[in-house]
Amino acid sequence: MLSALSSKELAVVLVSGGMDSCVTAAIANLQYEMAFLHLNYGQRTEQRELKAFNVIADYYKVKHRLVVDVHHLKQIGGSGLTDASIDIPRADLHRKEIPSSYVPFRNANILSIAVSWGEVIGAKKIFIGAVEEDSSGYPDCRKEFYTAFNDVIKLGTKAETHLEIETPIIHLKKSEIIKKGIELNVPFNLTWSCYQREDIACGECDSCALRLRGFQQAGVEDPIPYLK
Amino acid sequence: MLSALSSKELAVVLVSGGMDSCVTAAIANLQYEMAFLHLNYGQRTEQRELKAFNVIADYYKVKHRLVVDVHHLKQIGGSGLTDASIDIPRADLHRKEIPSSYVPFRNANILSIAVSWGEVIGAKKIFIGAVEEDSSGYPDCRKEFYTAFNDVIKLGTKAETHLEIETPIIHLKKSEIIKKGIELNVPFNLTWSCYQREDIACGECDSCALRLRGFQQAGVEDPIPYLK
Repeated sequence: MLSALSSKELAVVLVSGGMDSCVTAAIANLQYEMAFLHLNYGQRTEQRELKAFNVIADYYKVKHRLVVDVHHLKQIGGSGLTDASIDIPRADLHRKEIPSSYVPFRNANILSIAVSWGEVIGAKKIFIGAVEEDSSGYPDCRKEFYTAFNDVIKLGTKAETHLEIETPIIHLKKSEIIKKGIELNVPFNLTWSCYQREDIACGECDSCALRLRGFQQAGVEDPIPYLK
Repeated sequence: MLSALSSKELAVVLVSGGMDSCVTAAIANLQYEMAFLHLNYGQRTEQRELKAFNVIADYYKVKHRLVVDVHHLKQIGGSGLTDASIDIPRADLHRKEIPSSYVPFRNANILSIAVSWGEVIGAKKIFIGAVEEDSSGYPDCRKEFYTAFNDVIKLGTKAETHLEIETPIIHLKKSEIIKKGIELNVPFNLTWSCYQREDIACGECDSCALRLRGFQQAGVEDPIPYLK
């Protein structure tokens, strides 16, 4: 705690490899020494996102890195959405409302892992790049959810632990996130958003479309190449 | 929803295989159709506890069973307590205060998994056999923690979801839990509490000692055999 470097407090930053979490990291980096947490879901582009996580961590010279397999989220999602032996009330309604990739209460699972790790390494903050506007109505992307979760952290951790969730981009639009990122020199070229491909972004999936529209609205060119 | 059987609402019950969770299941069983959730931590007696989980599930004729590997909790605990490359403030203090098996905020991780599953299968309650008195001072065994977590569930799940945590034995002493269990015909012979052995309970570890004292205070004989 004597050197200038170590006097910075630690913050856990949830980094998926996409642009929202990268801008969130750039914001956290202004004030904290960062510990990067990444979760593997068994999603289609798992390896590409993990690669983006690591090159972004290298860019910010992050020493503390934790990669966790949360395949139980897939297992749970799968058991409800695909296993006919399980009795799901309003099953058809569920399938209409929720993309098959979505697992209810997912962000609470993610935050719980982040708090466990944060308490072990003595972090003061947990940064998450949740965005309310682009949340497709998922309840666990709203500001009130994070406020309530902070109460649970206070009650569920040791008295000497002071850990709080920060959601610095929760009220921003995609184009505002991009502008904020440019202001902070975010390496957008290192981020990965495409849900479909791992070599060149498809430019056609929801995630690519949202990203491209954001750059267009911000009046800036996206530095990554697209197939179309 | 027309037959008498299916008119019972679903409840997720966290069942470790020990006696507290088995008594909790017996209480849940009075009113709900039960869905049993078990977590593997990579603990020493993992296989024995899983066996207890399944025989208890058979006893209560539980159809909905989910077993989840949460090795990330071990990974996190390990990374903080054993990995010298990670900077842990007050590391010695931590080691004195917390058993090496403990992972901070563990119950939030467990509850998050239970809520995810509960929302997918349409459950109304989550039963957990947390006990405040025997909690060794862990903050996430206190009633207030569960009350706050219920707020997070309300905010972080869909509007049509109504899921609540129930902690029916949280204020009971071990001997009172045993008396409650006897009242409800709990199959104590099927439960497993020993931390050390998988064949015959050692009778000497903390968990065995707590159990034996509880049965003695309740004035009842423990139906399982002990080595000593």
